[in-house]
Amino acid sequence: MRDPNNAFHLAIPVRDLDEALEFYVSKLGCHLARRYDDRITLDFFGDQVVCHLSEGYESGPLELYPRHFGVTFKERRDFDDLLYLVNQRDLPLFRGPEPRFKDQVEEHLTVVLQDPSANLLEFKHYRDPRMMY
Amino acid sequence: MRDPNNAFHLAIPVRDLDEALEFYVSKLGCHLARRYDDRITLDFFGDQVVCHLSEGYESGPLELYPRHFGVTFKERRDFDDLLYLVNQRDLPLFRGPEPRFKDQVEEHLTVVLQDPSANLLEFKHYRDPRMMY
Amino acid sequence: MRDPNNAFHLAIPVRDLDEALEFYVSKLGCHLARRYDDRITLDFFGDQVVCHLSEGYESGPLELYPRHFGVTFKERRDFDDLLYLVNQRDLPLFRGPEPRFKDQVEEHLTVVLQDPSANLLEFKHYRDPRMMY
Amino acid sequence: MRDPNNAFHLAIPVRDLDEALEFYVSKLGCHLARRYDDRITLDFFGDQVVCHLSEGYESGPLELYPRHFGVTFKERRDFDDLLYLVNQRDLPLFRGPEPRFKDQVEEHLTVVLQDPSANLLEFKHYRDPRMMY
Amino acid sequence: MRDPNNAFHLAIPVRDLDEALEFYVSKLGCHLARRYDDRITLDFFGDQVVCHLSEGYESGPLELYPRHFGVTFKERRDFDDLLYLVNQRDLPLFRGPEPRFKDQVEEHLTVVLQDPSANLLEFKHYRDPRMMY
Amino acid sequence: MRDPNNAFHLAIPVRDLDEALEFYVSKLGCHLARRYDDRITLDFFGDQVVCHLSEGYESGPLELYPRHFGVTFKERRDFDDLLYLVNQRDLPLFRGPEPRFKDQVEEHLTVVLQDPSANLLEFKHYRDPRMMY
Amino acid sequence: MRDPNNAFHLAIPVRDLDEALEFYVSKLGCHLARRYDDRITLDFFGDQVVCHLSEGYESGPLELYPRHFGVTFKERRDFDDLLYLVNQRDLPLFRGPEPRFKDQVEEHLTVVLQDPSANLLEFKHYRDPRMMY
Amino acid sequence: MRDPNNAFHLAIPVRDLDEALEFYVSKLGCHLARRYDDRITLDFFGDQVVCHLSEGYESGPLELYPRHFGVTFKERRDFDDLLYLVNQRDLPLFRGPEPRFKDQVEEHLTVVLQDPSANLLEFKHYRDPRMMY
Repeated sequence: MRDPNNAFHLAIPVRDLDEALEFYVSKLGCHLARRYDDRITLDFFGDQVVCHLSEGYESGPLELYPRHFGVTFKERRDFDDLLYLVNQRDLPLFRGPEPRFKDQVEEHLTVVLQDPSANLLEFKHYRDPRMMY
Repeated sequence: MRDPNNAFHLAIPVRDLDEALEFYVSKLGCHLARRYDDRITLDFFGDQVVCHLSEGYESGPLELYPRHFGVTFKERRDFDDLLYLVNQRDLPLFRGPEPRFKDQVEEHLTVVLQDPSANLLEFKHYRDPRMMY
Repeated sequence: MRDPNNAFHLAIPVRDLDEALEFYVSKLGCHLARRYDDRITLDFFGDQVVCHLSEGYESGPLELYPRHFGVTFKERRDFDDLLYLVNQRDLPLFRGPEPRFKDQVEEHLTVVLQDPSANLLEFKHYRDPRMMY
Repeated sequence: MRDPNNAFHLAIPVRDLDEALEFYVSKLGCHLARRYDDRITLDFFGDQVVCHLSEGYESGPLELYPRHFGVTFKERRDFDDLLYLVNQRDLPLFRGPEPRFKDQVEEHLTVVLQDPSANLLEFKHYRDPRMMY
Repeated sequence: MRDPNNAFHLAIPVRDLDEALEFYVSKLGCHLARRYDDRITLDFFGDQVVCHLSEGYESGPLELYPRHFGVTFKERRDFDDLLYLVNQRDLPLFRGPEPRFKDQVEEHLTVVLQDPSANLLEFKHYRDPRMMY
Repeated sequence: MRDPNNAFHLAIPVRDLDEALEFYVSKLGCHLARRYDDRITLDFFGDQVVCHLSEGYESGPLELYPRHFGVTFKERRDFDDLLYLVNQRDLPLFRGPEPRFKDQVEEHLTVVLQDPSANLLEFKHYRDPRMMY
Repeated sequence: MRDPNNAFHLAIPVRDLDEALEFYVSKLGCHLARRYDDRITLDFFGDQVVCHLSEGYESGPLELYPRHFGVTFKERRDFDDLLYLVNQRDLPLFRGPEPRFKDQVEEHLTVVLQDPSANLLEFKHYRDPRMMY
Repeated sequence: MRDPNNAFHLAIPVRDLDEALEFYVSKLGCHLARRYDDRITLDFFGDQVVCHLSEGYESGPLELYPRHFGVTFKERRDFDDLLYLVNQRDLPLFRGPEPRFKDQVEEHLTVVLQDPSANLLEFKHYRDPRMMY
């Protein structure tokens, strides 16, 4: 169990702040904490994600490895709620939803989304919550 | 407050797994959860960081924006403990420790480390914990 | 102690949504959860405040009673953080900061702010936390 | 998740304190914390509601917007318990119980009660608890 | 640590319900949960105390043993808050405040109050919180 | 919700300490914290019960009112576990198990045990946990 | 309930550190905290187990009593997850899985594993969680 | 942080159950959960220690490695409370109290006690709580 009082902090590049706001807040249901000229800060499922406006932004071909981020939910119900949101609001899927490592202890459900700036977001739920690390 | 049962999940590239293990576990004090041929998974201050071995790894010049990650500690004592560890174990500093946004509500202490694969890690403590988002 | 999983829910009138967003998010540091044409919903110190756009809005003379809302902080440090924010960001004070019920068990610190739509917000800290009800 | 140690604080007008006590404590099951000549303070589902006696009280036609308050329950069971209480004790319904935003992510169950002084109380339960803000 | 979701339940005799209400709610700061013709139920520091009207009530000479009840506070600050309330509101002391078992591991501060029906209430704070059992 | 760090404290008379130990620890499953010549102290479901040896102990006819004590369980499963223990270990029943206030909001399950010194213990589970006060 | 901030600490002998690492981390899913020349320290289900390299290690015939250690899970689901891991990864069973004390209050499920250095690990789940002590 | 609902479980040999009870309960302040003919079970600082009567018990020379057990306290105050108890009740010291790994990140305070059956108990407090694993 992690300390509920701290926050993980992740900074990512985005090509447009309004577009990022639309994706993360209006679609994905995160909360906008602060808006500056060059970035927005988000309460992203209880942690902090900062979207930095990146001048000369250029995204290569999308690949899941080695860079992506997201949330591992302990409860299946939270993963299902996320999937329902993804479907109802037509969020762009990069991969899944699908199971991985079937019949192994590390078995989990995963879905990967892509934001408008080609950042990949993975949400997971493990059969055995001890495997979330 | 975030949910203590979930975990933030971040995947990053590293050029060498042993080197990453040395940095994240032996130096930074994270816990090794799993080791595969192509990656190690870490309990990183209660969240999950996965270090993926990246073939043909090439790092450009180090810049703090737009990509970095880390932890925002609610308690000053936890930030100071991290600084003490950084000093005693000679972890490579990229920036700070230093205050930012002095005399503003967003005022915070920050220190930025760099891992051997040129990933930047920022640890923060805000004067007003409401600003950690 | 209240249940951390639930949220108090308060709906209030505002004359302009952008103005409300500026006050509650950019100034007071609340988080924007959702924006509709006729309202914005806020994560207000962990509870929900909904600002409804009120056509033909007209505010009478400001009086603290019988209507106002806010947060009672258990810890003095949280009240002081709020005061610091109020000062640094020049939020409009309606009353205080000041002590009330001096030398009684109900003694508390209070500060009352006014939002641009003449809603009054009271923040409190009691000497004896049992008195926060 | 909100901080269980703090309390939301709401002050509302009532035309008669005994009548308010009867409604909020004997009917709705809130707890009486303090009674003064001009107000009563309540532990209202873990937060604080203060009923101020309002001289010359006059209520206009009842409208849900823009002013009402209540609780959003994370667990369905808590919402159902509230409904059961409302039915068994014949609390006056203003609207519902009914679903809103059907087939949208914001879908929730809602019931609106009215107290004897024409204050409206809304209790909610969201399909996806992330939408409670 | 005890389970925060349960409640200890204690039923005690009182000779007069209004008098008990005055003592437990108006003076001691407990919350009134329910009132019936023959009893009142209280939120007593988070647990439940029920005061039953006892016809033909007759109290013998007051003795601390073997019957009394109260709360052991883990934090000194909570004990001091209670003492302050006792002094400011002139609650009737039966014994103390005083230390007991000085220089032993079981050392604690204690104060014993008496309610109008001759029930004795003891509040304690131990030097070593492991000794509260 | 009550504070998990504090403990309710109840002192009761018993006619024999070994007999009390047998009942409370070996049968009811409480934990023995301390034993003195004139009393034993118990971790009683997370709160403290002290059994004082009462010289010249004499018990009148057993009546549930006005004196008894016990635990109200939020979860039905905990009440059922207690009932199972009562049956398997043949603890002496004074009343119940039975429902009370059927079809009212205060509806609850109750069972009353008697210890060898004629103290009555009531365990309860409410349909609506808000009614446990 | 135990304090989530502390850790139980157990030191045990092992004949080979790599072998112990393989068993505890790669198989049992514990996390490696630190590695020294003569020991490894583990985050063992939230507590600390230290494996000390024991020169001249010699193990006698395996017996469950009087020495073994492990975890008692409150929730059945956690016990079942452990069993699934044991089966999928072929961990060596010493005894069970099996029920013990059938039809008694102390009834529980148990499974005993043996590590490569002949230490025995028992995992349990009680029908009545009060019996876990 | 560990799960407060589970318990670590450790079984150890003792040569005499009354002697063990005297040491663990009367001296060290643990709680007796259950007593059988061949063992006693203890609530040991929130975890479970079972003392098994070992026929033909024979203890070799006392050595700290590789076998000992105890508790690592996050808060210094809890370690100091334990030391105070050790001094006031004259518990037999095997080593310390003393600091270890001075000026390293792993620096901690430690004290080692021995029970009457030659089991060694180590209590620790780390300068940096992340090092408790």
